[in-house]
Amino acid sequence: TLGIFTVLAGPGIAADPLPAWNDSSAKQAVLGFVAKVTNEGSADFVPESDRIATFDNDGTLWVEQPIYTQLAFALDRLRSMAPQHPEWKTQQPYKSVLDGDLETLKTGGKHALEQIIAATHAGMTSDDFDKITSDWISTAQHPRFKRLYTECVYQPQLELLKYLRENGFKTFIVSGGGIEFMRPWTERVYGISSPQVVGSSIATEFQFVDGQPVLMRLPKVNFVDDKAGKPVGIGQHIGKRPILAVGNSTGDLEMLQYTTGGSGARLGLLVYHNDAEREYAYGPAGGLPDSKIGTFPQSLMDDATENGWIVIGMKENWNQIFPSVP
Amino acid sequence: TLGIFTVLAGPGIAADPLPAWNDSSAKQAVLGFVAKVTNEGSADFVPESDRIATFDNDGTLWVEQPIYTQLAFALDRLRSMAPQHPEWKTQQPYKSVLDGDLETLKTGGKHALEQIIAATHAGMTSDDFDKITSDWISTAQHPRFKRLYTECVYQPQLELLKYLRENGFKTFIVSGGGIEFMRPWTERVYGISSPQVVGSSIATEFQFVDGQPVLMRLPKVNFVDDKAGKPVGIGQHIGKRPILAVGNSTGDLEMLQYTTGGSGARLGLLVYHNDAEREYAYGPAGGLPDSKIGTFPQSLMDDATENGWIVIGMKENWNQIFPSVP
Ligand SMILES: [Ca+2]
Ligand SMILES: [Ca+2]
Repeated sequence: TLGIFTVLAGPGIAADPLPAWNDSSAKQAVLGFVAKVTNEGSADFVPESDRIATFDNDGTLWVEQPIYTQLAFALDRLRSMAPQHPEWKTQQPYKSVLDGDLETLKTGGKHALEQIIAATHAGMTSDDFDKITSDWISTAQHPRFKRLYTECVYQPQLELLKYLRENGFKTFIVSGGGIEFMRPWTERVYGISSPQVVGSSIATEFQFVDGQPVLMRLPKVNFVDDKAGKPVGIGQHIGKRPILAVGNSTGDLEMLQYTTGGSGARLGLLVYHNDAEREYAYGPAGGLPDSKIGTFPQSLMDDATENGWIVIGMKENWNQIFPSVP
Repeated sequence: TLGIFTVLAGPGIAADPLPAWNDSSAKQAVLGFVAKVTNEGSADFVPESDRIATFDNDGTLWVEQPIYTQLAFALDRLRSMAPQHPEWKTQQPYKSVLDGDLETLKTGGKHALEQIIAATHAGMTSDDFDKITSDWISTAQHPRFKRLYTECVYQPQLELLKYLRENGFKTFIVSGGGIEFMRPWTERVYGISSPQVVGSSIATEFQFVDGQPVLMRLPKVNFVDDKAGKPVGIGQHIGKRPILAVGNSTGDLEMLQYTTGGSGARLGLLVYHNDAEREYAYGPAGGLPDSKIGTFPQSLMDDATENGWIVIGMKENWNQIFPSVP
């Protein structure tokens, strides 16, 4: 019944759906994959209900250097809470944060990080945490790019997300980051609604506070959506094996294995940060500097080759990194 | 740009979106609620992204008597597995199932049920369980109605789900039943896709089996999506407070409290099974027979009155119970 619009639109030349992608083999692989899974005449056709695409967030959809954005949030929040916690002036790991001494903070390892998450991410309702996160993300700026963190997202990926949805895909985030840290802004920034965000979480409990029914955030880990946890999170939240997965580090290995290990047409993509000038360069794959954040080791590069996953070097593949800001 | 279709369609009289609902106060409450939250001029307007509706499954969307459908599945599966487990002939709780002795089974309580779930729901991959469930649900019949369980769904609720989606709602299942027991058929039967199904689950683990990456189902409870677990499950999977929730028993109390405890327009609905002739009658609210399955106690009826939740007596409100079967 909408045929008339096609006629009115005329033949014309289809606009490039991925203008921020250079005309590389990676772009051709993406376009070719979408073309075959959406072509009913193709042996690789996939019905819409099975067109599931999962995207890692940190380093895949937005910048993760020099520190994860959620850690920047936690440190900012700790500093803003400090006046109510005079004891933090002498207690680690809080003291190192207040002193701006990230080297000492790092020596505290995982336990220190858990203490900081407990202090900054728990003890309030989900509704309150939503507001705290929303307020922070609407003003905090990236230290190098001097723009909002939500403006340090990758323009080529925004185009890819939109292109996939226009082709009947459901797009999901599957991130090691906090599910409730992402949800308040993913719809506005990525077009990905709250139920389509999968991430790590702390436990919540249904409680009445001042007579109001709320979900209270507890200082206790519920789920870690990283490495082998990513396929598990996909099973819990999506309940279908994706046909396309996009990541950028060792944390995404199992998600790509699970995705491309299914039968039929499958595609695995890995963003490779090799552009120090426009963004960052880190590996250590390919001889780039090693990074504890978003590590892309040579073994992952070898896995990509072996499994036919496409490695997207930022430098060669993307002609624009960030969206234009008004 | 679609104005032309409106003109072509002419003024006419809008078709009743809920024909299986009698013209009762319950129906008027539902229509009135949808009208006000979708009316941009209304003080109660809710943007589409916040139009979240959650439905319990057993006893709310389909029949739950004489036993939960998932228990019928577990018992059938146990019987079909028995030839490979000769020891079950003498071991409880398996023996009681094979003997058709549900009274003895009941004396085993929660532990017996866990053993049966472990034997029938774990030890295979998620993909294999999907196939096992799909095969069973496509042939198993309800003992009284002699039709597929998926045809023992409530026609008025199918209409309500569709009507809500047509008005920009996202519809979710939030059930105490097993999430992977429901997902293989909810899209076909209810129009609710797999990611929009929230339920109880057992733990899964990412493994390689014969070189294939799979999710293995473990004999270990992961999450119980019942009572105070329902708001928690909503938080995990949806990440927004619903504005409409529908249930039928004590297991839904906290979901309705959480839903209607938010600010702005909210609606809570409770199906009340008072129609022994066409379906079942159980409470014990209102003096109906007590039931361990889907208990609707007088206290829930009192909660409904106090909170303004609408109680939908099947007998008075629904002029058709099940869909017509071809
Ligand atoms: Ca990453
Ligand atoms: Ca129920």
